[in-house]
Amino acid sequence: MGKQKKRSNKLRTMSKTFSTQYRVMYHNVDLSGQLSVPSLGDYILDTAGLHATQLGISMQHLATMDMTWVMSGLHFEIGNLPMINSTVEVRTQISGCSKISSKRDFIISCNGDKVAEASTEWLIINTKTRRPIFLTEVFPQIEELIMPDSGIPRYRHLRFRPSAESTPIKNYTVEYSDIDINTHLYSMRYLEMSLNSLGLQYIKDKRISRIDANFMQEVLYGGQVAIFAEPDGSNADQIEMQESGKAMFRARIETEPRTQLL
Amino acid sequence: MGKQKKRSNKLRTMSKTFSTQYRVMYHNVDLSGQLSVPSLGDYILDTAGLHATQLGISMQHLATMDMTWVMSGLHFEIGNLPMINSTVEVRTQISGCSKISSKRDFIISCNGDKVAEASTEWLIINTKTRRPIFLTEVFPQIEELIMPDSGIPRYRHLRFRPSAESTPIKNYTVEYSDIDINTHLYSMRYLEMSLNSLGLQYIKDKRISRIDANFMQEVLYGGQVAIFAEPDGSNADQIEMQESGKAMFRARIETEPRTQLL
Repeated sequence: MGKQKKRSNKLRTMSKTFSTQYRVMYHNVDLSGQLSVPSLGDYILDTAGLHATQLGISMQHLATMDMTWVMSGLHFEIGNLPMINSTVEVRTQISGCSKISSKRDFIISCNGDKVAEASTEWLIINTKTRRPIFLTEVFPQIEELIMPDSGIPRYRHLRFRPSAESTPIKNYTVEYSDIDINTHLYSMRYLEMSLNSLGLQYIKDKRISRIDANFMQEVLYGGQVAIFAEPDGSNADQIEMQESGKAMFRARIETEPRTQLL
Repeated sequence: MGKQKKRSNKLRTMSKTFSTQYRVMYHNVDLSGQLSVPSLGDYILDTAGLHATQLGISMQHLATMDMTWVMSGLHFEIGNLPMINSTVEVRTQISGCSKISSKRDFIISCNGDKVAEASTEWLIINTKTRRPIFLTEVFPQIEELIMPDSGIPRYRHLRFRPSAESTPIKNYTVEYSDIDINTHLYSMRYLEMSLNSLGLQYIKDKRISRIDANFMQEVLYGGQVAIFAEPDGSNADQIEMQESGKAMFRARIETEPRTQLL
């Protein structure tokens, strides 16, 4: 039996799609009593980690080679979010890859009804140089694991820049609780900090329906960031997080009026 | 069959002890790859909520009467915290009550080994007046649900005040992501903010072995707090969070040197 055949046998035991469930816990909801968008993000990142583990490409395994996964882009389409103690199912698959990135999609449902869809783009970086690595060198089997495209759109590249005269809405220094196992700002904290900059009244008045996010540079412990926000038309806001004047993160958050005010 | 008998029958179907499990997820660990202390706190609060629901005294039920549970004190004894993807069991019981407060204890284990113990004190407040309510009026059956004392110590009342000349280590304005379904600063965020004020090197050098926390006043959205920290002997630090000069929260954090540096 040739090497190729052996690998194919091994791959057959791996599942190209993966799903798991989460109960919406007390600390996963915001003042509305509904799952918060950053907690929904926690779930999809955790699901991605479990699937990667099953595929033999977990972050723990990459760490032994001084490598790790980082998310470079995120797209969210969000319906009505479930209430506390609901059970949420997250289903994921890899839907595409290039030399240095892979696209992973998610469908999130509750009692059979779709709650949200997401697509994410991932790189593998060297944790010493912090530079991307050719994906197919570390993970040659990825091409055999790609599912047909789910139709969930890829994140938009955001080219927004705050106008020259604008001042930051918030200045913030990255703290212990903001960083993750990769010792950089946790991806869902970028999103939380973006929502924080829009303020509580924004959350009370509006339902977040769509997010595009670009994770452009790592922010490390102690990093001093400035957050800029400007409306983009009547139903969207654009956020940029800068460190020393350099764009580290951008998001575009689209909303609808809430039907029931909080 | 008298009312008393009916109630006793109902109570027999309730469980005086309750346990549930949590898988340590990606966002539950800190840079060490181990469960963070605030995430351990998330677990025990969630377990308390599930047990209260089983006993018919959930926060959701109290909300229909303009009431809610609030935590007034916390004591933690912490061993070696489990790694990412471990499964943690949390077991809880009510161990005592007074006119306005109840004591709830927790034992946290992983693969049969004890990870931590905790005791908490809870009040029921009126959400309009924000004042405590006589517990036995809302929850007369509580006396029948109390288990023999577990021996887990009650939290210490902390009387630490920062010295007159000391300046805050951090000033912070409470944001959207800091508040919970009760629209006040989430109890574990007080703890996170305390650890943040001690800084990353503290976390790298030390293992947190014991915490006492006093939740004295609610902090609301937009609240501007100042955090003071001073050593208490060689292996403990005292934290006070103030708003407009008034003590809102105090914690005493006891540590041991880490055996394996991060």
